[in-house]
Amino acid sequence: MDQTTTPISSHQPIGVFDSGIGGLTVVAELRRRLPHEAIFYIGDTARVPYGNKSQATIERYSVEISELLLTRGAKMIVVACNTASSQALPQLEHLLPVPVTGVILPGAKAAVARTKNGHIGVIGTRATVRSGAYEKAIHALAPEVRVTSKACPMLVPTIEEGWLQSSITDAIIAEYLGDLTESGIDTLVLGCTHYPLLKKALARYLGPDIRLVDSGENCAIAVGELLETHRLSAPKEAQGSLQVALTDPADVFLTVAEEALGLSVGEIHTAQVQK
Amino acid sequence: MDQTTTPISSHQPIGVFDSGIGGLTVVAELRRRLPHEAIFYIGDTARVPYGNKSQATIERYSVEISELLLTRGAKMIVVACNTASSQALPQLEHLLPVPVTGVILPGAKAAVARTKNGHIGVIGTRATVRSGAYEKAIHALAPEVRVTSKACPMLVPTIEEGWLQSSITDAIIAEYLGDLTESGIDTLVLGCTHYPLLKKALARYLGPDIRLVDSGENCAIAVGELLETHRLSAPKEAQGSLQVALTDPADVFLTVAEEALGLSVGEIHTAQVQK
Repeated sequence: MDQTTTPISSHQPIGVFDSGIGGLTVVAELRRRLPHEAIFYIGDTARVPYGNKSQATIERYSVEISELLLTRGAKMIVVACNTASSQALPQLEHLLPVPVTGVILPGAKAAVARTKNGHIGVIGTRATVRSGAYEKAIHALAPEVRVTSKACPMLVPTIEEGWLQSSITDAIIAEYLGDLTESGIDTLVLGCTHYPLLKKALARYLGPDIRLVDSGENCAIAVGELLETHRLSAPKEAQGSLQVALTDPADVFLTVAEEALGLSVGEIHTAQVQK
Repeated sequence: MDQTTTPISSHQPIGVFDSGIGGLTVVAELRRRLPHEAIFYIGDTARVPYGNKSQATIERYSVEISELLLTRGAKMIVVACNTASSQALPQLEHLLPVPVTGVILPGAKAAVARTKNGHIGVIGTRATVRSGAYEKAIHALAPEVRVTSKACPMLVPTIEEGWLQSSITDAIIAEYLGDLTESGIDTLVLGCTHYPLLKKALARYLGPDIRLVDSGENCAIAVGELLETHRLSAPKEAQGSLQVALTDPADVFLTVAEEALGLSVGEIHTAQVQK
Protein backbone atom coordinates (compact mmCIF):
# COMPACT_ATOMS: atom_id res chain seq x y z
CA MET A 1 0.00 0.00 0.00
CA ASP A 2 1.42 3.34 -1.04
CA GLN A 3 0.42 4.99 2.24
CA THR A 4 3.62 3.56 3.72
CA THR A 5 5.66 6.11 1.78
CA THR A 6 4.07 9.04 3.63
CA PRO A 7 5.23 9.61 7.22
CA ILE A 8 2.36 9.52 9.73
CA SER A 9 1.67 12.75 11.59
CA SER A 10 -0.07 13.25 14.92
CA HIS A 11 -2.39 15.78 13.26
CA GLN A 12 -4.02 13.09 11.17
CA PRO A 13 -7.34 11.59 12.23
CA ILE A 14 -7.98 8.32 14.02
CA GLY A 15 -9.83 6.03 11.62
CA VAL A 16 -12.63 4.01 13.23
CA PHE A 17 -14.92 1.49 11.57
CA ASP A 18 -17.75 -0.85 12.35
CA SER A 19 -20.08 -2.97 10.24
CA GLY A 20 -22.78 -0.46 11.15
CA ILE A 21 -23.52 2.29 13.62
CA GLY A 22 -22.89 0.44 16.91
CA GLY A 23 -19.22 1.51 16.80
CA LEU A 24 -20.36 5.04 17.61
CA THR A 25 -20.38 3.98 21.27
CA VAL A 26 -16.59 3.61 20.89
CA VAL A 27 -16.45 7.00 19.15
CA ALA A 28 -18.36 8.59 22.05
CA GLU A 29 -15.73 7.21 24.47
CA LEU A 30 -12.90 8.39 22.20
CA ARG A 31 -14.41 11.88 22.01
CA ARG A 32 -14.77 11.97 25.80
CA ARG A 33 -11.28 10.69 26.59
CA LEU A 34 -9.33 12.15 23.67
CA PRO A 35 -11.04 15.48 22.98
CA HIS A 36 -8.17 16.81 20.87
CA GLU A 37 -8.31 14.02 18.33
CA ALA A 38 -9.94 14.20 14.92
CA ILE A 39 -11.95 11.06 14.24
CA PHE A 40 -13.08 9.72 10.91
CA TYR A 41 -15.70 6.98 11.27
CA ILE A 42 -16.97 4.64 8.56
CA GLY A 43 -20.02 2.46 9.19
CA ASP A 44 -20.36 -0.25 6.56
CA THR A 45 -24.16 -0.05 6.69
CA ALA A 46 -24.48 -1.40 3.14
CA ARG A 47 -23.10 -4.76 4.21
CA VAL A 48 -24.18 -4.97 7.86
CA PRO A 49 -24.22 -7.42 9.61
CA TYR A 50 -20.76 -8.98 9.27
CA GLY A 51 -21.66 -11.68 11.80
CA ASN A 52 -23.14 -14.11 9.30
CA LYS A 53 -20.35 -13.73 6.71
CA SER A 54 -17.34 -16.03 6.25
CA GLN A 55 -13.94 -15.08 7.68
CA ALA A 56 -12.54 -14.44 4.16
CA THR A 57 -15.41 -12.06 3.41
CA ILE A 58 -15.04 -10.23 6.74
CA GLU A 59 -11.29 -9.84 6.10
CA ARG A 60 -11.94 -8.47 2.62
CA TYR A 61 -14.54 -5.99 3.91
CA SER A 62 -12.29 -4.91 6.80
CA VAL A 63 -9.28 -4.33 4.54
CA GLU A 64 -11.43 -2.40 2.06
CA ILE A 65 -12.87 -0.10 4.75
CA SER A 66 -9.45 0.35 6.38
CA GLU A 67 -8.02 1.42 3.01
CA LEU A 68 -10.82 3.99 2.68
CA LEU A 69 -9.82 5.31 6.12
CA LEU A 70 -6.16 5.46 5.05
CA THR A 71 -7.10 7.55 2.01
CA ARG A 72 -8.64 9.93 4.58
CA GLY A 73 -5.24 10.09 6.25
CA ALA A 74 -5.93 7.82 9.23
CA LYS A 75 -2.91 7.63 11.57
CA MET A 76 -4.29 4.51 13.22
CA ILE A 77 -7.21 2.15 12.69
CA VAL A 78 -9.69 1.26 15.42
CA VAL A 79 -11.81 -1.79 14.67
CA ALA A 80 -14.92 -0.83 16.65
CA CYS A 81 -16.68 -4.06 15.74
CA ASN A 82 -16.47 -7.32 17.64
CA THR A 83 -16.94 -9.51 14.58
CA ALA A 84 -14.23 -7.76 12.56
CA SER A 85 -11.96 -7.69 15.64
CA SER A 86 -12.32 -11.44 16.10
CA GLN A 87 -11.99 -12.36 12.41
CA ALA A 88 -9.80 -9.76 10.68
CA LEU A 89 -7.40 -8.21 13.19
CA PRO A 90 -4.31 -10.36 12.37
CA GLN A 91 -4.83 -9.68 8.66
CA LEU A 92 -5.18 -5.92 9.26
CA GLU A 93 -2.12 -5.82 11.54
CA HIS A 94 -0.18 -7.62 8.82
CA LEU A 95 -1.32 -5.40 5.93
CA LEU A 96 -1.76 -1.90 7.31
CA PRO A 97 1.09 0.62 7.64
CA VAL A 98 -0.42 2.19 10.80
CA PRO A 99 -1.16 0.88 14.32
CA VAL A 100 -4.39 -1.12 14.65
CA THR A 101 -6.49 -1.98 17.67
CA GLY A 102 -9.74 -3.89 18.12
CA VAL A 103 -12.24 -4.08 20.95
CA ILE A 104 -11.70 -7.62 22.20
CA LEU A 105 -8.25 -7.54 23.79
CA PRO A 106 -8.92 -4.29 25.72
CA GLY A 107 -12.21 -5.74 27.01
CA ALA A 108 -10.57 -9.03 27.97
CA LYS A 109 -7.73 -7.23 29.81
CA ALA A 110 -10.16 -5.06 31.79
CA ALA A 111 -12.29 -8.07 32.74
CA VAL A 112 -9.28 -10.05 33.98
CA ALA A 113 -8.15 -7.03 36.01
CA ARG A 114 -11.59 -6.60 37.59
CA THR A 115 -12.76 -10.10 38.44
CA LYS A 116 -12.20 -11.12 42.05
CA ASN A 117 -13.76 -14.56 42.06
CA GLY A 118 -12.22 -15.55 38.71
CA HIS A 119 -15.54 -16.07 36.90
CA ILE A 120 -16.28 -13.74 33.98
CA GLY A 121 -19.45 -13.59 31.88
CA VAL A 122 -19.47 -12.46 28.25
CA ILE A 123 -22.52 -11.40 26.24
CA GLY A 124 -22.50 -10.72 22.52
CA THR A 125 -24.11 -11.54 19.21
CA ARG A 126 -24.40 -15.17 18.16
CA ALA A 127 -21.39 -14.74 15.84
CA THR A 128 -19.14 -13.25 18.53
CA VAL A 129 -20.05 -15.88 21.10
CA ARG A 130 -19.62 -18.67 18.53
CA SER A 131 -16.15 -17.33 17.67
CA GLY A 132 -15.02 -17.79 21.28
CA ALA A 133 -12.84 -14.69 20.80
CA TYR A 134 -13.29 -13.35 24.35
CA GLU A 135 -12.65 -16.77 25.95
CA LYS A 136 -9.44 -17.11 23.95
CA ALA A 137 -8.28 -13.59 24.79
CA ILE A 138 -9.13 -14.00 28.49
CA HIS A 139 -7.50 -17.43 28.73
CA ALA A 140 -4.36 -16.16 26.99
CA LEU A 141 -4.09 -13.60 29.81
CA ALA A 142 -5.34 -15.76 32.70
CA PRO A 143 -5.79 -19.46 31.94
CA GLU A 144 -7.35 -20.16 35.35
CA VAL A 145 -10.28 -17.76 34.86
CA ARG A 146 -13.65 -19.34 34.15
CA VAL A 147 -15.63 -17.76 31.28
CA THR A 148 -19.37 -18.23 30.72
CA SER A 149 -20.72 -16.80 27.48
CA LYS A 150 -24.24 -16.12 26.35
CA ALA A 151 -25.45 -15.04 22.90
CA CYS A 152 -28.15 -12.36 23.15
CA PRO A 153 -29.39 -11.90 19.57
CA MET A 154 -32.41 -9.79 20.58
CA LEU A 155 -30.38 -7.02 22.23
CA VAL A 156 -29.15 -5.33 19.03
CA PRO A 157 -32.65 -5.11 17.50
CA THR A 158 -33.99 -3.81 20.83
CA ILE A 159 -31.34 -1.08 20.89
CA GLU A 160 -31.85 -0.24 17.21
CA GLU A 161 -35.59 0.11 17.89
CA GLY A 162 -34.68 2.70 20.53
CA TRP A 163 -36.23 0.73 23.41
CA LEU A 164 -33.43 1.66 25.82
CA GLN A 165 -35.76 2.06 28.82
CA SER A 166 -38.73 -0.24 28.54
CA SER A 167 -40.34 -3.06 30.49
CA ILE A 168 -39.98 -5.23 27.38
CA THR A 169 -36.24 -4.57 27.33
CA ASP A 170 -36.01 -5.41 31.03
CA ALA A 171 -37.84 -8.70 30.36
CA ILE A 172 -35.48 -9.56 27.47
CA ILE A 173 -32.45 -8.80 29.65
CA ALA A 174 -33.85 -10.97 32.46
CA GLU A 175 -34.49 -13.80 30.00
CA TYR A 176 -30.90 -13.71 28.74
CA LEU A 177 -29.01 -12.95 31.93
CA GLY A 178 -30.89 -15.13 34.42
CA ASP A 179 -28.69 -18.22 34.02
CA LEU A 180 -25.55 -16.12 33.70
CA THR A 181 -26.02 -14.30 37.00
CA GLU A 182 -26.99 -17.55 38.73
CA SER A 183 -23.78 -19.16 37.46
CA GLY A 184 -21.82 -16.94 39.85
CA ILE A 185 -20.02 -14.43 37.59
CA ASP A 186 -18.78 -11.24 39.26
CA THR A 187 -17.87 -9.43 36.00
CA LEU A 188 -19.80 -9.14 32.74
CA VAL A 189 -18.15 -8.12 29.45
CA LEU A 190 -20.37 -6.23 26.99
CA GLY A 191 -19.02 -7.99 23.92
CA CYS A 192 -20.93 -5.96 21.34
CA THR A 193 -20.44 -2.29 20.55
CA HIS A 194 -24.22 -1.70 20.69
CA TYR A 195 -24.57 -2.86 24.28
CA PRO A 196 -23.24 0.22 26.13
CA LEU A 197 -26.52 1.87 25.09
CA LEU A 198 -28.24 -0.58 27.45
CA LYS A 199 -25.78 -0.06 30.29
CA LYS A 200 -28.37 1.44 32.65
CA ALA A 201 -30.92 -1.32 32.09
CA LEU A 202 -28.22 -3.99 32.38
CA ALA A 203 -26.76 -2.51 35.57
CA ARG A 204 -30.24 -2.30 37.10
CA TYR A 205 -30.78 -6.00 36.45
CA LEU A 206 -27.30 -7.10 37.55
CA GLY A 207 -27.22 -5.11 40.78
CA PRO A 208 -24.09 -3.80 42.52
CA ASP A 209 -22.26 -7.13 42.85
CA ILE A 210 -21.60 -7.75 39.15
CA ARG A 211 -19.27 -5.30 37.43
CA LEU A 212 -19.86 -4.32 33.82
CA VAL A 213 -16.90 -4.16 31.44
CA ASP A 214 -17.56 -1.94 28.46
CA SER A 215 -15.27 -3.07 25.63
CA GLY A 216 -15.73 0.25 23.88
CA GLU A 217 -14.59 2.24 26.92
CA ASN A 218 -11.55 0.01 27.32
CA CYS A 219 -10.83 0.20 23.61
CA ALA A 220 -10.76 4.01 23.90
CA ILE A 221 -8.27 3.74 26.79
CA ALA A 222 -6.13 1.39 24.66
CA VAL A 223 -6.24 3.85 21.75
CA GLY A 224 -4.94 6.63 24.01
CA GLU A 225 -2.07 4.42 25.20
CA LEU A 226 -1.22 3.28 21.67
CA LEU A 227 -1.12 6.86 20.43
CA GLU A 228 1.24 7.76 23.30
CA THR A 229 3.50 4.78 22.53
CA HIS A 230 3.74 5.73 18.85
CA ARG A 231 4.01 9.47 19.66
CA LEU A 232 0.91 10.06 17.56
CA SER A 233 -1.33 11.87 20.10
CA ALA A 234 -2.85 15.05 18.73
CA PRO A 235 -1.31 18.24 20.18
CA LYS A 236 -3.20 19.62 23.19
CA GLU A 237 -4.09 22.80 21.30
CA ALA A 238 -5.80 20.86 18.51
CA GLN A 239 -9.56 21.01 18.34
CA GLY A 240 -11.02 17.54 18.07
CA SER A 241 -13.62 16.72 15.45
CA LEU A 242 -15.80 13.91 14.19
CA GLN A 243 -16.71 13.00 10.64
CA VAL A 244 -19.03 10.10 9.91
CA ALA A 245 -19.38 8.29 6.59
CA LEU A 246 -21.71 5.40 5.86
CA THR A 247 -21.75 3.01 2.92
CA ASP A 248 -25.57 3.11 2.71
CA PRO A 249 -27.99 5.78 3.96
CA ALA A 250 -28.54 5.86 7.73
CA ASP A 251 -31.68 4.41 9.24
CA VAL A 252 -33.46 5.55 12.38
CA PHE A 253 -30.87 3.94 14.64
CA LEU A 254 -28.45 6.77 13.90
CA THR A 255 -30.86 9.16 15.65
CA VAL A 256 -31.22 6.74 18.58
CA ALA A 257 -27.43 6.51 18.92
CA GLU A 258 -26.87 10.26 18.56
CA GLU A 259 -29.41 11.05 21.25
CA ALA A 260 -28.40 8.32 23.67
CA LEU A 261 -24.69 9.03 23.28
CA GLY A 262 -25.00 12.81 23.18
CA LEU A 263 -22.94 12.64 20.01
CA SER A 264 -23.19 15.19 17.24
CA VAL A 265 -22.28 13.51 13.97
CA GLY A 266 -23.06 16.48 11.73
CA GLU A 267 -23.47 15.86 8.02
CA ILE A 268 -23.24 12.18 7.08
CA HIS A 269 -20.93 11.41 4.15
CA THR A 270 -21.24 8.47 1.82
CA ALA A 271 -18.43 5.98 1.24
CA GLN A 272 -18.61 3.68 -1.79
CA VAL A 273 -18.00 -0.05 -1.44
CA GLN A 274 -18.73 -2.97 -3.69
CA LYS A 275 -22.01 -4.63 -2.67
CA MET B 1 -31.22 -15.60 -21.42
CA ASP B 2 -30.76 -18.92 -23.16
CA GLN B 3 -33.44 -20.60 -21.04
CA THR B 4 -36.01 -19.12 -23.44
CA THR B 5 -34.97 -21.60 -26.10
CA THR B 6 -36.09 -24.62 -24.02
CA PRO B 7 -39.85 -25.22 -23.79
CA ILE B 8 -41.14 -25.21 -20.21
CA SER B 9 -42.58 -28.49 -18.93
CA SER B 10 -45.04 -29.02 -16.08
CA HIS B 11 -42.63 -31.58 -14.58
CA GLN B 12 -40.08 -28.88 -13.80
CA PRO B 13 -39.87 -27.43 -10.29
CA ILE B 14 -41.31 -24.19 -8.98
CA GLY B 15 -38.42 -21.88 -8.12
CA VAL B 16 -38.90 -19.94 -4.90
CA PHE B 17 -36.55 -17.41 -3.35
CA ASP B 18 -36.24 -15.11 -0.38
CA SER B 19 -33.45 -12.98 1.03
CA GLY B 20 -33.26 -15.55 3.84
CA ILE B 21 -35.27 -18.33 5.41
CA GLY B 22 -38.59 -16.51 6.05
CA GLY B 23 -39.82 -17.54 2.60
CA LEU B 24 -40.12 -21.10 3.89
CA THR B 25 -43.53 -20.08 5.27
CA VAL B 26 -44.58 -19.66 1.62
CA VAL B 27 -42.97 -23.01 0.80
CA ALA B 28 -44.97 -24.66 3.61
CA GLU B 29 -48.20 -23.29 2.08
CA LEU B 30 -47.12 -24.41 -1.40
CA ARG B 31 -46.37 -27.92 -0.11
CA ARG B 32 -49.77 -28.07 1.60
CA ARG B 33 -51.79 -26.74 -1.33
CA LEU B 34 -49.79 -28.14 -4.26
CA PRO B 35 -48.49 -31.50 -2.96
CA HIS B 36 -47.56 -32.77 -6.44
CA GLU B 37 -45.17 -29.94 -7.18
CA ALA B 38 -41.40 -30.10 -6.93
CA ILE B 39 -40.03 -26.97 -5.25
CA PHE B 40 -36.53 -25.60 -5.41
CA TYR B 41 -35.93 -22.89 -2.82
CA ILE B 42 -32.97 -20.54 -2.59
CA GLY B 43 -32.44 -18.41 0.52
CA ASP B 44 -29.88 -15.65 -0.09
CA THR B 45 -28.62 -15.88 3.48
CA ALA B 46 -25.21 -14.50 2.48
CA ARG B 47 -26.75 -11.14 1.67
CA VAL B 48 -29.75 -10.99 4.02
CA PRO B 49 -31.39 -8.57 4.73
CA TYR B 50 -32.36 -6.97 1.41
CA GLY B 51 -34.41 -4.31 3.21
CA ASN B 52 -31.55 -1.86 3.68
CA LYS B 53 -30.17 -2.17 0.13
CA SER B 54 -30.86 0.16 -2.80
CA GLN B 55 -33.42 -0.78 -5.46
CA ALA B 56 -30.67 -1.36 -8.06
CA THR B 57 -28.88 -3.75 -5.70
CA ILE B 58 -32.10 -5.62 -4.84
CA GLU B 59 -32.89 -5.96 -8.56
CA ARG B 60 -29.41 -7.30 -9.26
CA TYR B 61 -29.61 -9.83 -6.40
CA SER B 62 -33.13 -10.92 -7.44
CA VAL B 63 -32.13 -11.44 -11.08
CA GLU B 64 -29.02 -13.37 -10.03
CA ILE B 65 -30.97 -15.72 -7.73
CA SER B 66 -33.74 -16.15 -10.32
CA GLU B 67 -31.13 -17.16 -12.89
CA LEU B 68 -29.77 -19.75 -10.45
CA LEU B 69 -33.33 -21.10 -10.14
CA LEU B 70 -33.68 -21.21 -13.95
CA THR B 71 -30.49 -23.27 -14.21
CA ARG B 72 -32.29 -25.70 -11.87
CA GLY B 73 -35.10 -25.85 -14.42
CA ALA B 74 -37.64 -23.61 -12.64
CA LYS B 75 -40.92 -23.42 -14.60
CA MET B 76 -41.97 -20.34 -12.66
CA ILE B 77 -40.42 -18.00 -10.10
CA VAL B 78 -42.05 -17.16 -6.77
CA VAL B 79 -40.59 -14.13 -5.04
CA ALA B 80 -41.28 -15.15 -1.43
CA CYS B 81 -39.81 -11.93 -0.08
CA ASN B 82 -41.68 -8.69 0.47
CA THR B 83 -38.67 -6.47 -0.20
CA ALA B 84 -37.80 -8.16 -3.48
CA SER B 85 -41.50 -8.25 -4.45
CA SER B 86 -41.82 -4.51 -3.90
CA GLN B 87 -38.52 -3.56 -5.56
CA ALA B 88 -37.68 -6.09 -8.26
CA LEU B 89 -40.90 -7.66 -9.58
CA PRO B 90 -41.28 -5.46 -12.73
CA GLN B 91 -37.64 -6.10 -13.63
CA LEU B 92 -38.04 -9.88 -13.12
CA GLU B 93 -41.29 -9.98 -15.13
CA HIS B 94 -39.50 -8.12 -17.92
CA LEU B 95 -36.37 -10.30 -17.96
CA LEU B 96 -37.45 -13.83 -17.08
CA PRO B 97 -38.78 -16.32 -19.65
CA VAL B 98 -41.15 -17.94 -17.11
CA PRO B 99 -44.17 -16.68 -15.10
CA VAL B 100 -43.30 -14.73 -11.95
CA THR B 101 -45.34 -13.91 -8.87
CA GLY B 102 -44.59 -12.05 -5.67
CA VAL B 103 -46.30 -11.92 -2.29
CA ILE B 104 -47.68 -8.39 -2.28
CA LEU B 105 -50.43 -8.45 -4.91
CA PRO B 106 -51.96 -11.73 -3.64
CA GLY B 107 -51.96 -10.34 -0.08
CA ALA B 108 -53.48 -7.04 -1.19
CA LYS B 109 -56.23 -8.83 -3.18
CA ALA B 110 -57.15 -11.05 -0.24
CA ALA B 111 -57.26 -8.08 2.14
CA VAL B 112 -59.53 -6.08 -0.16
CA ALA B 113 -61.83 -9.10 -0.51
CA ARG B 114 -62.02 -9.59 3.27
CA THR B 115 -62.42 -6.12 4.71
CA LYS B 116 -65.99 -5.16 5.52
CA ASN B 117 -65.43 -1.72 7.03
CA GLY B 118 -62.89 -0.66 4.38
CA HIS B 119 -59.99 -0.18 6.82
CA ILE B 120 -56.99 -2.48 6.40
CA GLY B 121 -53.88 -2.63 8.57
CA VAL B 122 -50.47 -3.72 7.24
CA ILE B 123 -47.48 -4.79 9.32
CA GLY B 124 -44.01 -5.42 7.93
CA THR B 125 -40.36 -4.57 8.22
CA ARG B 126 -39.31 -0.95 8.15
CA ALA B 127 -38.26 -1.30 4.49
CA THR B 128 -41.57 -2.80 3.36
CA VAL B 129 -43.64 -0.21 5.19
CA ARG B 130 -41.44 2.60 3.89
CA SER B 131 -41.90 1.33 0.32
CA GLY B 132 -45.68 1.76 0.59
CA ALA B 133 -46.01 -1.32 -1.63
CA TYR B 134 -49.13 -2.71 0.07
CA GLU B 135 -50.88 0.68 0.11
CA LYS B 136 -50.20 1.09 -3.60
CA ALA B 137 -51.39 -2.43 -4.43
CA ILE B 138 -54.52 -2.06 -2.26
CA HIS B 139 -55.36 1.37 -3.64
CA ALA B 140 -54.90 0.16 -7.22
CA LEU B 141 -57.60 -2.43 -6.48
CA ALA B 142 -59.83 -0.31 -4.22
CA PRO B 143 -58.99 3.41 -4.04
CA GLU B 144 -61.59 4.02 -1.31
CA VAL B 145 -60.05 1.61 1.20
CA ARG B 146 -58.15 3.15 4.12
CA VAL B 147 -54.74 1.59 4.86
CA THR B 148 -52.86 2.03 8.14
CA SER B 149 -49.33 0.62 8.17
CA LYS B 150 -46.98 -0.09 11.03
CA ALA B 151 -43.33 -1.14 10.87
CA CYS B 152 -42.55 -3.85 13.43
CA PRO B 153 -38.75 -4.28 13.27
CA MET B 154 -38.58 -6.44 16.42
CA LEU B 155 -40.83 -9.21 15.09
CA VAL B 156 -38.30 -10.84 12.75
CA PRO B 157 -35.58 -11.07 15.44
CA THR B 158 -38.18 -12.44 17.88
CA ILE B 159 -39.18 -15.13 15.41
CA GLU B 160 -35.56 -15.93 14.52
CA GLU B 161 -34.83 -16.34 18.24
CA GLY B 162 -37.60 -18.94 18.32
CA TRP B 163 -39.70 -17.02 20.84
CA LEU B 164 -42.96 -17.95 19.12
CA GLN B 165 -44.91 -18.43 22.38
CA SER B 166 -43.57 -16.14 25.08
CA SER B 167 -44.82 -13.38 27.33
CA ILE B 168 -42.07 -11.15 25.89
CA THR B 169 -43.39 -11.77 22.37
CA ASP B 170 -46.93 -10.98 23.54
CA ALA B 171 -45.67 -7.71 25.04
CA ILE B 172 -43.84 -6.78 21.81
CA ILE B 173 -46.99 -7.53 19.77
CA ALA B 174 -49.11 -5.42 22.13
CA GLU B 175 -46.59 -2.56 21.86
CA TYR B 176 -46.74 -2.60 18.06
CA LEU B 177 -50.40 -3.37 17.46
CA GLY B 178 -52.06 -1.24 20.16
CA ASP B 179 -52.50 1.87 18.01
CA LEU B 180 -53.33 -0.20 14.94
CA THR B 181 -56.23 -2.06 16.57
CA GLU B 182 -57.51 1.17 18.15
CA SER B 183 -57.51 2.84 14.73
CA GLY B 184 -60.44 0.59 13.75
CA ILE B 185 -58.97 -1.86 11.21
CA ASP B 186 -60.97 -5.06 10.63
CA THR B 187 -58.26 -6.81 8.55
CA LEU B 188 -54.51 -7.10 9.14
CA VAL B 189 -52.06 -8.05 6.39
CA LEU B 190 -48.94 -9.94 7.51
CA GLY B 191 -46.58 -8.12 5.16
CA CYS B 192 -43.47 -10.15 5.96
CA THR B 193 -42.88 -13.81 5.16
CA HIS B 194 -41.61 -14.42 8.71
CA TYR B 195 -44.84 -13.32 10.38
CA PRO B 196 -47.02 -16.41 9.76
CA LEU B 197 -44.83 -18.08 12.41
CA LEU B 198 -46.42 -15.67 14.93
CA LYS B 199 -49.98 -16.22 13.67
CA LYS B 200 -51.20 -17.77 16.93
CA ALA B 201 -49.76 -15.03 19.12
CA LEU B 202 -51.03 -12.32 16.77
CA ALA B 203 -54.53 -13.83 16.55
CA ARG B 204 -54.66 -14.11 20.35
CA TYR B 205 -53.89 -10.40 20.67
CA LEU B 206 -56.20 -9.27 17.86
CA GLY B 207 -59.24 -11.30 18.95
CA PRO B 208 -61.98 -12.60 16.65
CA ASP B 209 -62.99 -9.26 15.11
CA ILE B 210 -59.80 -8.58 13.15
CA ARG B 211 -59.03 -11.00 10.33
CA LEU B 212 -55.45 -11.92 9.53
CA VAL B 213 -54.33 -12.01 5.90
CA ASP B 214 -51.30 -14.21 5.38
CA SER B 215 -49.53 -13.01 2.21
CA GLY B 216 -47.71 -16.33 1.95
CA GLU B 217 -50.94 -18.33 1.99
CA ASN B 218 -52.45 -16.07 -0.66
CA CYS B 219 -49.24 -16.21 -2.69
CA ALA B 220 -49.52 -20.02 -2.71
CA ILE B 221 -53.12 -19.75 -3.95
CA ALA B 222 -51.96 -17.36 -6.69
CA VAL B 223 -49.19 -19.78 -7.70
CA GLY B 224 -51.75 -22.58 -8.11
CA GLU B 225 -53.93 -20.34 -10.31
CA LEU B 226 -50.96 -19.16 -12.38
CA LEU B 227 -49.82 -22.75 -12.99
CA GLU B 228 -53.35 -23.64 -14.15
CA THR B 229 -53.48 -20.63 -16.49
CA HIS B 230 -50.14 -21.52 -18.06
CA ARG B 231 -50.96 -25.27 -18.08
CA LEU B 232 -47.88 -25.87 -15.97
CA SER B 233 -49.39 -27.72 -12.99
CA ALA B 234 -47.53 -30.92 -12.12
CA PRO B 235 -49.44 -34.09 -13.06
CA LYS B 236 -51.54 -35.53 -10.23
CA GLU B 237 -49.45 -38.72 -10.16
CA ALA B 238 -46.22 -36.75 -9.55
CA GLN B 239 -44.68 -36.95 -6.12
CA GLY B 240 -43.91 -33.49 -4.81
CA SER B 241 -40.50 -32.67 -3.35
CA LEU B 242 -38.55 -29.87 -1.74
CA GLN B 243 -34.92 -28.91 -2.19
CA VAL B 244 -33.40 -26.03 -0.25
CA ALA B 245 -30.21 -24.17 -1.13
CA LEU B 246 -28.69 -21.30 0.84
CA THR B 247 -25.96 -18.88 -0.19
CA ASP B 248 -24.37 -19.01 3.29
CA PRO B 249 -24.63 -21.73 5.95
CA ALA B 250 -27.93 -21.86 7.84
CA ASP B 251 -28.19 -20.46 11.34
CA VAL B 252 -30.44 -21.67 14.14
CA PHE B 253 -33.50 -20.05 12.59
CA LEU B 254 -33.69 -22.86 10.03
CA THR B 255 -34.42 -25.29 12.87
CA VAL B 256 -37.04 -22.92 14.31
CA ALA B 257 -38.75 -22.64 10.91
CA GLU B 258 -38.59 -26.38 10.21
CA GLU B 259 -40.15 -27.24 13.57
CA ALA B 260 -42.79 -24.53 13.55
CA LEU B 261 -43.80 -25.20 9.94
CA GLY B 262 -43.57 -28.99 10.15
CA LEU B 263 -41.36 -28.75 7.07
CA SER B 264 -38.67 -31.26 6.24
CA VAL B 265 -35.97 -29.51 4.22
CA GLY B 266 -33.57 -32.48 4.03
CA GLU B 267 -29.97 -31.81 3.08
CA ILE B 268 -29.22 -28.13 2.59
CA HIS B 269 -27.35 -27.30 -0.62
CA THR B 270 -25.10 -24.31 -1.16
CA ALA B 271 -25.61 -21.77 -3.93
CA GLN B 272 -22.76 -19.45 -4.85
CA VAL B 273 -23.33 -15.73 -5.23
CA GLN B 274 -20.99 -12.78 -5.35
CA LYS B 275 -20.76 -11.14 -1.92
